[in-house]
Amino acid sequence: MFEQLGLIGCGLMGGSFALALRRRGLVRRIVGYSPRRQSLERALAMGAIDIAASSPFDATSGADLVLIAVPVSATAATFAAIRDTLTPRTLLMDVGSTKCDVVDAALQTLGEHLESFVPAHPIAGKECAGIEHADAELYAGRQVILTPLEQGRTDLLQAAETLWTALGSTVVRTTPQEHDAAFAAVSHLPHLVAFAAMNAILGQTHAAEYLALAGPGFRDFTRIAASDPAVWRDILLANRANVLQQCEHLHSQLQAFTTAMRAGDAPALDSLLHRASTARARWTMTSS
Amino acid sequence: MFEQLGLIGCGLMGGSFALALRRRGLVRRIVGYSPRRQSLERALAMGAIDIAASSPFDATSGADLVLIAVPVSATAATFAAIRDTLTPRTLLMDVGSTKCDVVDAALQTLGEHLESFVPAHPIAGKECAGIEHADAELYAGRQVILTPLEQGRTDLLQAAETLWTALGSTVVRTTPQEHDAAFAAVSHLPHLVAFAAMNAILGQTHAAEYLALAGPGFRDFTRIAASDPAVWRDILLANRANVLQQCEHLHSQLQAFTTAMRAGDAPALDSLLHRASTARARWTMTSS
Repeated sequence: MFEQLGLIGCGLMGGSFALALRRRGLVRRIVGYSPRRQSLERALAMGAIDIAASSPFDATSGADLVLIAVPVSATAATFAAIRDTLTPRTLLMDVGSTKCDVVDAALQTLGEHLESFVPAHPIAGKECAGIEHADAELYAGRQVILTPLEQGRTDLLQAAETLWTALGSTVVRTTPQEHDAAFAAVSHLPHLVAFAAMNAILGQTHAAEYLALAGPGFRDFTRIAASDPAVWRDILLANRANVLQQCEHLHSQLQAFTTAMRAGDAPALDSLLHRASTARARWTMTSS
Repeated sequence: MFEQLGLIGCGLMGGSFALALRRRGLVRRIVGYSPRRQSLERALAMGAIDIAASSPFDATSGADLVLIAVPVSATAATFAAIRDTLTPRTLLMDVGSTKCDVVDAALQTLGEHLESFVPAHPIAGKECAGIEHADAELYAGRQVILTPLEQGRTDLLQAAETLWTALGSTVVRTTPQEHDAAFAAVSHLPHLVAFAAMNAILGQTHAAEYLALAGPGFRDFTRIAASDPAVWRDILLANRANVLQQCEHLHSQLQAFTTAMRAGDAPALDSLLHRASTARARWTMTSS
C-alpha cells in the first residue's frame, strides 16, 4: 500500500496506472499533473486522481510512488523538475517505450536520487491516446519490462515487481540495450510501417475509394497507425539506430518477395510464405 | 431458395458459405468437393455439406448454385472441369481475392456458360485456413465485391446480390481492374509486408527473445502473416503488377520516415505521423 502516487502525465498510460492502483486498493491518494488542463480535469472527473497539482513538483511532493508517463523526450525535464521531492522511500518509475534514452536522462539529472529509479516499460497500450481511454485493466495479462540500473536499490526493484504483479502484469528484467534492440524489431518498426502504409495510400488519387473497400486485415494491420504522434516521434528518434537497422532487415525481406514475384517464381514465394505463416501461426503473445 | 449448392473447395471460405446458406435455410442440398480427403470428411462431419463428391464435376452436376472457393491459380482448371454441368439456371460464383485473372480464366474456359458467372470477392476471412475455422457468420457485416462481366446475365447478377445480402453482406460493384488496383493497396500489400516482417525477425539471432517480448501491437500488425501460403502465393503472382506498384508507394513513404529520422528532424516526423494517425483514427471499416 502506497501513501501517495505522484502521477506526471494524465494520458492513457498514466491514467490507466492510477485507475489500476485505485481499483486494487494499492494507494491512498493520487496527485496528478498534466500540462494539458483538459486532461487534468478529465482525470479528476473520472476519479483517476484525487488532486490536480499545478506543477510536477507539487504532484510528487510527499509521494512515495512516482510515475512518469510522458512522451520520452520530456523525461529529462520531468526528472529535473521533481528531483528535489524524492526521498529515500520513493519508488520512481516511468512507462517509456525506449529505455536507453530514459536511463541516460536519469543518469544526467537524478544525481543522488538515481537509486530510486526503476525504468519500466509495460507492453500495453491502445491505438487511442488520452485519459478518456484509460482502463484499470490495461496492464492485466501484459508483460512489463524492467531495466534496473546498477545504482538502483534492490528493495525498490522488489517493490516495483510486487506492484506490477499486483496489477496482473508479468515482470521481465533485461538491460536497456537489449530492450531497445528487441522493441525496435517487434514494436517500433511495425508502428513505423503502419504509419508509412497509411501515408502510402493517402498519397494516391483513389485513396478514398480504396479505404472504403478495406476490410478486417487492413483494420488490424494499420490499427497502430492511429497511435499518438508525439509519443511515436520521440520513440522513433530516441531509438533510431535500432529502428533503422530493422528497416534494413525488412527491406531485404521485401526484396526477396518482390524478386520472386517479378520472376514469377512460385516455389520461392511458397518458401517465403510458409516460413512466415508457420512462425506466425505458432506464435502466441506472452501473458500472465 | 436454391435446390443444390455445388461447392468446390471445402476450406474456410467455402465452408463458411455453405454453413451460412444452411443456417438461413437458403439451400436444400449441398454437395461438396475438395481434393483433400480430410477437408471433405470434416465438412461432412460439421454438416457444411450433405454429400462428398468424388470430383468437381459430380459436385456441380444438377446444381443451381456453384461456388468456386479454391486458390485463384486453380480457377481455370476448375471452370474447365465443371463447365459441362452448368445449365441456364445455374448461378456460378467464385470468392477469389483477385479478379482480373479469374475473369481471364472464365473468358478462356467457360464459353457459352460465361453468362452464368458472377465474379465475387467477399472481404472476409481469418488468418487461419481450413474448414475447421468455417463460420456461418463470416460474411455477415462484411462487404462483397462483385465484378460482373458484360456477358453476364442480369437476372443472375440480381440473384447473386440477393444471396449475399441475405448472408448479411453489403454488395459493391466495380470492375476487375479497379478491384485489383484497390486490393493491391488495402489487402495484398499489407499481407506481403506482414509476411516479410515476420521473416525479417526470424532471420535475426535473437528472434526467439524478441518474439517472446512482443505485445498486442505486434499481434495485430502480423495477424495476417499467418494466412494460407497457397492462397497468397497465387494472389501475389496474379496481381503482381499492382502489388509491385504499391510496394513502390510504401518504399517512398518509408524513405520519408527514415530520412527524417536520420536527420533528427522532429517537425518532419511530426507531420508524417500526424497525417497517418489522423487518417487512421478517422477511418472505419465499411460494414452493413
